[in-house]
Amino acid sequence: MHFKIRPAKKEDCKEISRLIMELAVYEKMPDQVKIAHEELERDGFCENPFFQCLVAEVPEEHKSKEGFTVVGYALYFYTYSTWKGRSIFLEDLYVMPEFRGNGIGKGLLCKVAEVGKKKECVRLQLSVLDWNTPSRDFYAAKGAQDLTVSEGWHAIRFDGQSLDNLANEAAKI
Amino acid sequence: MHFKIRPAKKEDCKEISRLIMELAVYEKMPDQVKIAHEELERDGFCENPFFQCLVAEVPEEHKSKEGFTVVGYALYFYTYSTWKGRSIFLEDLYVMPEFRGNGIGKGLLCKVAEVGKKKECVRLQLSVLDWNTPSRDFYAAKGAQDLTVSEGWHAIRFDGQSLDNLANEAAKI
Repeated sequence: MHFKIRPAKKEDCKEISRLIMELAVYEKMPDQVKIAHEELERDGFCENPFFQCLVAEVPEEHKSKEGFTVVGYALYFYTYSTWKGRSIFLEDLYVMPEFRGNGIGKGLLCKVAEVGKKKECVRLQLSVLDWNTPSRDFYAAKGAQDLTVSEGWHAIRFDGQSLDNLANEAAKI
Repeated sequence: MHFKIRPAKKEDCKEISRLIMELAVYEKMPDQVKIAHEELERDGFCENPFFQCLVAEVPEEHKSKEGFTVVGYALYFYTYSTWKGRSIFLEDLYVMPEFRGNGIGKGLLCKVAEVGKKKECVRLQLSVLDWNTPSRDFYAAKGAQDLTVSEGWHAIRFDGQSLDNLANEAAKI
């Protein structure tokens, strides 16, 4: 199937928001999605944007059952390693189920890697859930290392009250 | 002990680079550090910087055995959650051993949380090695969740040849 991968425009945010929700359903946490297209427009299309995004588009004649032509996305941002330097982080990679098996997911991943290399990034990183063996196998087959398994890295998060508590203590320092 | 936490300046990069190496020695991977102060100056003090940094400084009369007054740092950048929005990621937090126990590490962490809240970030995240129980306990005591334990998130990385392979395939799409 023919498809095109291009940088997202502000007008794509409603479609990206729809795909974010589909991915959250797949990840079994749909009630966790608290932002909508307005926040994506504000945070991704400002000066110093918080993220960047590629979308995969199919021609009208291949549109989905519901009439969608934007059928996948890869949302990423730049991070930094104090050991190795510039890195790129792939926050989300998603292709609608009916369009899988056409190389769209792989295409999005490769395009993000290409964007990263152009910016002289030496790493492309992402997170994956341990029960998501199709994705883990997909990345492993392409040569990725699982750092949680090989080096023992854990992801730690402050949010809600624990984040407020820290920020409030800063005022006393 | 009196100390001050302030945003790093370009001129601090040599000191930050020294502290990055000390942290890598603590993490048992000193040979992994491939960048030096020149890269920090280029990547942290440009338009759209790849990271930002706070440093902890003590007065001259409390300088270290070797004569250093910059005794700790917190290096961070902004990331993005497609479920919750703006986030801040703490890449490194380090205090020289002889200055620990004075609240400097906690002070740096709280100041990063404060910076994040000012930018309307809803999460502060970081990674920690599983054998590093002092750090894991420190974050847990302040209310952080371990997402690798509670939700099963794994950190995945492409670099070197595997990253080059992906980027090279992008040209064919």
